[in-house]
Amino acid sequence: MAKLGNNQYGKARVRLSRITRHGDTHDFDEWAVKVLLQGDFADSFTKADNSRILPTDTMKNTVYSLARESKAVTIEQFAMELGDYLLRDNPQVSGASIAIEAKPWHRMTTGAAQDATTFRLGGPEVYTTVAQRDRDGEWAVASGVDGLTILKTTHSEFTGFIQNRHTTLQPSTDRIFGTCATVTWHYDSNVQDFADARKRIIAALLREFTAHHSMSVQHTLFDMGKAALEAAAEIQRITLVMPNLHHLLANLSPFGQDNPNHIFVPIDEPHGYIEATIER
Amino acid sequence: MAKLGNNQYGKARVRLSRITRHGDTHDFDEWAVKVLLQGDFADSFTKADNSRILPTDTMKNTVYSLARESKAVTIEQFAMELGDYLLRDNPQVSGASIAIEAKPWHRMTTGAAQDATTFRLGGPEVYTTVAQRDRDGEWAVASGVDGLTILKTTHSEFTGFIQNRHTTLQPSTDRIFGTCATVTWHYDSNVQDFADARKRIIAALLREFTAHHSMSVQHTLFDMGKAALEAAAEIQRITLVMPNLHHLLANLSPFGQDNPNHIFVPIDEPHGYIEATIER
Amino acid sequence: MAKLGNNQYGKARVRLSRITRHGDTHDFDEWAVKVLLQGDFADSFTKADNSRILPTDTMKNTVYSLARESKAVTIEQFAMELGDYLLRDNPQVSGASIAIEAKPWHRMTTGAAQDATTFRLGGPEVYTTVAQRDRDGEWAVASGVDGLTILKTTHSEFTGFIQNRHTTLQPSTDRIFGTCATVTWHYDSNVQDFADARKRIIAALLREFTAHHSMSVQHTLFDMGKAALEAAAEIQRITLVMPNLHHLLANLSPFGQDNPNHIFVPIDEPHGYIEATIER
Amino acid sequence: MAKLGNNQYGKARVRLSRITRHGDTHDFDEWAVKVLLQGDFADSFTKADNSRILPTDTMKNTVYSLARESKAVTIEQFAMELGDYLLRDNPQVSGASIAIEAKPWHRMTTGAAQDATTFRLGGPEVYTTVAQRDRDGEWAVASGVDGLTILKTTHSEFTGFIQNRHTTLQPSTDRIFGTCATVTWHYDSNVQDFADARKRIIAALLREFTAHHSMSVQHTLFDMGKAALEAAAEIQRITLVMPNLHHLLANLSPFGQDNPNHIFVPIDEPHGYIEATIER
Repeated sequence: MAKLGNNQYGKARVRLSRITRHGDTHDFDEWAVKVLLQGDFADSFTKADNSRILPTDTMKNTVYSLARESKAVTIEQFAMELGDYLLRDNPQVSGASIAIEAKPWHRMTTGAAQDATTFRLGGPEVYTTVAQRDRDGEWAVASGVDGLTILKTTHSEFTGFIQNRHTTLQPSTDRIFGTCATVTWHYDSNVQDFADARKRIIAALLREFTAHHSMSVQHTLFDMGKAALEAAAEIQRITLVMPNLHHLLANLSPFGQDNPNHIFVPIDEPHGYIEATIER
Repeated sequence: MAKLGNNQYGKARVRLSRITRHGDTHDFDEWAVKVLLQGDFADSFTKADNSRILPTDTMKNTVYSLARESKAVTIEQFAMELGDYLLRDNPQVSGASIAIEAKPWHRMTTGAAQDATTFRLGGPEVYTTVAQRDRDGEWAVASGVDGLTILKTTHSEFTGFIQNRHTTLQPSTDRIFGTCATVTWHYDSNVQDFADARKRIIAALLREFTAHHSMSVQHTLFDMGKAALEAAAEIQRITLVMPNLHHLLANLSPFGQDNPNHIFVPIDEPHGYIEATIER
Repeated sequence: MAKLGNNQYGKARVRLSRITRHGDTHDFDEWAVKVLLQGDFADSFTKADNSRILPTDTMKNTVYSLARESKAVTIEQFAMELGDYLLRDNPQVSGASIAIEAKPWHRMTTGAAQDATTFRLGGPEVYTTVAQRDRDGEWAVASGVDGLTILKTTHSEFTGFIQNRHTTLQPSTDRIFGTCATVTWHYDSNVQDFADARKRIIAALLREFTAHHSMSVQHTLFDMGKAALEAAAEIQRITLVMPNLHHLLANLSPFGQDNPNHIFVPIDEPHGYIEATIER
Repeated sequence: MAKLGNNQYGKARVRLSRITRHGDTHDFDEWAVKVLLQGDFADSFTKADNSRILPTDTMKNTVYSLARESKAVTIEQFAMELGDYLLRDNPQVSGASIAIEAKPWHRMTTGAAQDATTFRLGGPEVYTTVAQRDRDGEWAVASGVDGLTILKTTHSEFTGFIQNRHTTLQPSTDRIFGTCATVTWHYDSNVQDFADARKRIIAALLREFTAHHSMSVQHTLFDMGKAALEAAAEIQRITLVMPNLHHLLANLSPFGQDNPNHIFVPIDEPHGYIEATIER
């Protein structure tokens, strides 16, 4: 006999852009929303009974309709508003998880001035949040940044590691350290200003990465996480995933040339993968 | 004070291809391996001490070296072999997680004959496995298929769902049902033949999808999972993620045309997302 | 002074799916259409005068509306129909270029039987066509396949090449030959059956690749093109782009192991790139 | 009889990174090089004779070896150096085309200061060049930027266009104008400073886009091209490809809501496509 286990459903990639007007100056946001609901949906799976199913098309409509009414400035606020609405309106739903990612649109700068209504897409990174709440619980909000791509050309070593029969890597006291970081931090329940916290956390991560003399990816990752915790009292813990984007020293010896950390071969694969949570 | 929480590290996208010779007939495999290790790595994070760190470069070398010696036919066998080796050789490691995905290379067919040494890449799908073991535990093996892209042009309905102020979707008794399924099944501890189980499971999933008269994605998902459980006694449970790849009926009424389920607008986003585990 | 040079505009990624009914058996097509128009559009660029501009949104509507009326079975026929319509209806347009790519949906096979209304997405390849016509000219139709991914585990050599101070490659009499081919063939003006020609051409390409004893990518490419020309009298010339998807022999000598063409490292980059047109 | 037509071959995605030291301050470049050679290669295609074939593996080695010796600061200089070397060293080669794209690594800024050896990947755009020379000719250099993603929330209209039976688009005097521009400019033969020209051209493009009151994509495209020509006397012509990244006004009327240019649905497909060359 087959029976239904854990399940959830919803709508992904509900894309939304928004102009917020402050006189002649506009804010511009571009978000992709993912709604996932948990609840009493068993009959749809096992009895072909859709009477407790809110169509995912309706979830999509709800996103746009709520966005029109919402005063939310941040993706965190909007995620919780949307989840609250869906929980309130749907007794069959026991839990809601709302994930939003925002594109890094920056105000256009020409010369010294920032333009009021023109924007340019910044780095490869996106800003993220996932807000989860059970019907009788509180919101758990984890925000972050995906694809933050940063690199040090020096002040990075890797020595003293295990040697075995499969070792070919040479210890190095000066190597390129590049990563495309995915970072997620978990907020306490009472946060005053998500935008300000995000700003402080990302600034702390970048500042620490820049200043760090790295003895390993692990070493730098930990100190970046620590710096973020120090910069934002409103977060409890932070998880960093830092794949190592390798730049291998090009082997020019077949051509009778030296290569004193000058020319490298960047590779996307394989790549080292280091993941850790730093807590208070 | 900051302290280290959960952490793991390893090497991802270790790509490997292999020719296995049976006289003049060759088998060809192309895999991407991801190694993740858990263990006593705290000093590398907090004390810049790498003495318990097996470099990810060495993990990569180990993959290729073991592959040369291995008799493993399936990704499941090789994942466990590799994990066993890393656990045996590294006392500082407490757990290993090995994920492998295989590309769907099929033997080339020209006319009626299959060629012995020529191959063609099949569908968009890849075959997957993740094997996890703690030092004192047993292997937990979950295998699957990602990106299995299938579609029914009829025998798919969606009616009887909740109506509210945000509803615009019309009930339908005949709609296109397309999905790009990600399926993962969890094996019991004693599996004789992973390749045969995989074959039976995928065949059961496709057979059920084909035969099904669908009242919702949930309805079809459940019956597909049930069919897989019936086809493979060696699995305990199966998780299916079935995003709904929508094909919207094109609105031709502005041009004075009808559209009796003839012309559609396929969209990738937004998309419905349905996920469930089916258990015995 | 700045002046306007060559220009064209249109709509890309107009996605369209279609069910064609033969009693209870359905055909299913999924296409992406790109419309590009050339003509007298200078005033829109230099005088902000849009009076000769057919909006790209209207082109999109035209695609769906024509698809409803069309009897076209192939992407080639539909491309010409659409272009003819746009040229006839728009005197300001001097030329039209219609590109269509089709996804490789195949009828689902379960057991021995093909299902009448269920489909499965095949290989990574897409089928393509570009039809171009000037107002007073004839249609030039070039069709093809992109992403045809094929591989030989043997019967591939590469020897006798130039040696110089930057040479490190060893000659090989047995290497893996993998490619992801993009092929384009140019039709004569009177083609009876585009679907049949496409079928014959792809079969000839695959047959030749399979049977070939390759002395270089160039060598195999030429013979594949020749085979296609022989298989389809209705084509004048064929262009093949065959990047070399390298599988490098893994170097296991640091581990004291041999590697008799057994274990390889597949890489996506860098890759050899060979392109040639074969003519009658 | 089949005969060989146009052909070329080479190596693509030769990835290269470089640290250039100015005391303790480093410059960092990351490039992907594509080498294509034209010449007398017919015998490799038709006679399996590789004696005039420089292996693509050797081209790759040449890129790294030359990079070590090169004083080139820009991708344009390095492209010509590499092409000159290959033409000089290979009498069988009649023409060389070298394409390079550079990632937008920017010096890390923390607080007010720029760090000397830390970098951050900027926008989605990449910087490009293609240098082409025949043995007895001069270099033709076309440089550009791909993926420059910019958006205006107002000062964009689209009215006065053709109306026909397939028109559903409403004229608009205030719409979002977003694009992901690919721009290519063609240099005169004597350029003093490619880096400075690139900087002036991109600044001019962004300045014009920002200041422009747009009556159509065509209108803005032309004025952007004109501004670039005015900013850089060393370019002869410039080609802009500006797909329209549509942000559709969300239809909230089914929910009894208005939508005064507040909430939009951004879509990637279909998209308008406008392409033009602006010349002196």
